[in-house]
Amino acid sequence: MAKSPENEHPHKSFGWAATDTSGILSPFHFSRRENGPDDVAIKILFCGVCHSDLHTVKNDWGFTTYPVVPGHEIVGIVTKTGDNVKKFKVGDRVGVGVIVESCKECECCQQDLESYCPKPVFTYNSPYYDGTRTHGGYSDFVVVHQHYVLQFPENLPLDAGAPLLCAGITVYSPMIYYGMTEPGKHLGVAGLGGLGHVAIKFGKAFGLKVTVISSSPNKEFEAINKLGADSFLLSTDPAKFKEAIGTLDYIIDTISAVHSLNSLLALLKLNGKLVTVGLPSKPLELPVFPLVMGRKLIGGSNFGGLKETQEMLDFCGKHNITADIELIKIDQINTAMERLVKSDVKYRFVIDVGNSLSTS
Amino acid sequence: MAKSPENEHPHKSFGWAATDTSGILSPFHFSRRENGPDDVAIKILFCGVCHSDLHTVKNDWGFTTYPVVPGHEIVGIVTKTGDNVKKFKVGDRVGVGVIVESCKECECCQQDLESYCPKPVFTYNSPYYDGTRTHGGYSDFVVVHQHYVLQFPENLPLDAGAPLLCAGITVYSPMIYYGMTEPGKHLGVAGLGGLGHVAIKFGKAFGLKVTVISSSPNKEFEAINKLGADSFLLSTDPAKFKEAIGTLDYIIDTISAVHSLNSLLALLKLNGKLVTVGLPSKPLELPVFPLVMGRKLIGGSNFGGLKETQEMLDFCGKHNITADIELIKIDQINTAMERLVKSDVKYRFVIDVGNSLSTS
Repeated sequence: MAKSPENEHPHKSFGWAATDTSGILSPFHFSRRENGPDDVAIKILFCGVCHSDLHTVKNDWGFTTYPVVPGHEIVGIVTKTGDNVKKFKVGDRVGVGVIVESCKECECCQQDLESYCPKPVFTYNSPYYDGTRTHGGYSDFVVVHQHYVLQFPENLPLDAGAPLLCAGITVYSPMIYYGMTEPGKHLGVAGLGGLGHVAIKFGKAFGLKVTVISSSPNKEFEAINKLGADSFLLSTDPAKFKEAIGTLDYIIDTISAVHSLNSLLALLKLNGKLVTVGLPSKPLELPVFPLVMGRKLIGGSNFGGLKETQEMLDFCGKHNITADIELIKIDQINTAMERLVKSDVKYRFVIDVGNSLSTS
Repeated sequence: MAKSPENEHPHKSFGWAATDTSGILSPFHFSRRENGPDDVAIKILFCGVCHSDLHTVKNDWGFTTYPVVPGHEIVGIVTKTGDNVKKFKVGDRVGVGVIVESCKECECCQQDLESYCPKPVFTYNSPYYDGTRTHGGYSDFVVVHQHYVLQFPENLPLDAGAPLLCAGITVYSPMIYYGMTEPGKHLGVAGLGGLGHVAIKFGKAFGLKVTVISSSPNKEFEAINKLGADSFLLSTDPAKFKEAIGTLDYIIDTISAVHSLNSLLALLKLNGKLVTVGLPSKPLELPVFPLVMGRKLIGGSNFGGLKETQEMLDFCGKHNITADIELIKIDQINTAMERLVKSDVKYRFVIDVGNSLSTS
């Protein structure tokens, strides 16, 4: 008979879990595995609230196993290291992102693209190799193989830095892969949420001109005055839109709702590149004519591998890039999830796990 | 009052034109301009029959002006050169492709991408700078600015070489631009017609493994035994299709009918590239999930610039690449057009203009 989550592993752990498709999170006792020779135990201090957490607790994608403790933008302090662990020591500030294991043998793993391994173990809601299930960062501590642990830059605050582990790498990785980093080029950021607002910061750090493309006029002031965008294009203003046709070299499309690619493609110059990192639930309409006539491309990208994630964190340390966050206590998570549904957040919720998670 | 086509220019010319949306071609007297200092006069020997010719004579795209003499896969012999022309001499074997003029000043023209110039003059059915309209290669001769004339490799036959001027460059250009030329990689060619059969030959010349993807089982024998493909994937065979999932590095998609991108994308490996060169009349469905999860891209490409077209011809000369053609007389053109509608051609009609066009 399968053991209960509380007795599967030797170490008691505590977090907040969703137990059914209502997605409502509540206190949950479970356990974490013994620290192996390659493992790092991490006391969790902060955890970002990603849109994927929301989809998972509500079983929007159809593969949630309850109970599930979400959270894959984890930062904290190392409390224990296994004998083989050389690059981390107790007290180090570290991060854990979207995956905690992969096969280590496939072509992807060999090429530092663990994020594309066909047998990944996600940080939560995933079967682990020992038959148990993984639980994420809405919890007191976690045990992770050292390969999947990141050094967190000394100069960055842990709370505002947490969202870099998913939102950050998800926009950074395609910018590198598709070569969207040439200084002086013009980047469009479609959609201004958790991913979009970080994309602005990366764009500016790479020396790009950045235009935010959004249907919300009330986002203009902050996009320019707080987040550093150079300009704002209201996608519902036909006159402004017409003026902007053919002015962009790149677009990072973070919109997860079904939307028009035709109008975004029209904004691109010859050889323009549009990278989609949102995951609309239905197919989009692809107009072939503008692709052919303008030699444009549409590319996809998932989050990055571990090597690239470390490079991204180091880049953020160098350029002082963090997310703009709303820090919440763990008992505010259900309200935060409700607000997330309405995109009512500037621009990422982060749970102050260290100061608010308590069994009492 | 506008002059009649026969009297617009000083030199009498003769060809076959469509005069209305029936698309039926018939003998047509018109005229060609005086040979200017930068012009080359070419006696036309052969002209390929491109799908665009068919679309134009029937006004499928809505911008045909009648009468129109089609044909933009032109090869022939230089009969006259202007004073500024140094790179061609009388008697040279030359070719003319899709455009005969461009603005020469824009970013595209400056970068040898005249094919993307916003003010191109197409070889036929296009307003020319002097207010007259251009006419194509289903005719006895043509006068073209030297920049838009190509040297034809000495070792290639002119008749089978003619289709390189449009079909050839249309598949060669994206292979270069998108980096689909790494020896040992696996190319899928979707659709086996005028473009697809040349794509096989380029693929093999670049050292690729080539798989033809087609819904016509009767194309398998020729694809492998005559055109040099390594394998054939019948897209309507679910078992074979399943086996082929994740096996291709690149796909050249030449299918001009509305079709499923989802299944083609499934055939690609991680980082796979699909380039679409067909022009379906309606948008395709773009599934975002496989793009993101496999970091795949969909790119468009039009025909290439003049510099690249010359490079393509030289590459064909070196590798002995020509099209597989059915040579027809000019008075067979209407039957050929009917067969083209049904894709009943292996794999390109070429008109023997030199030996069959006669005013008598």
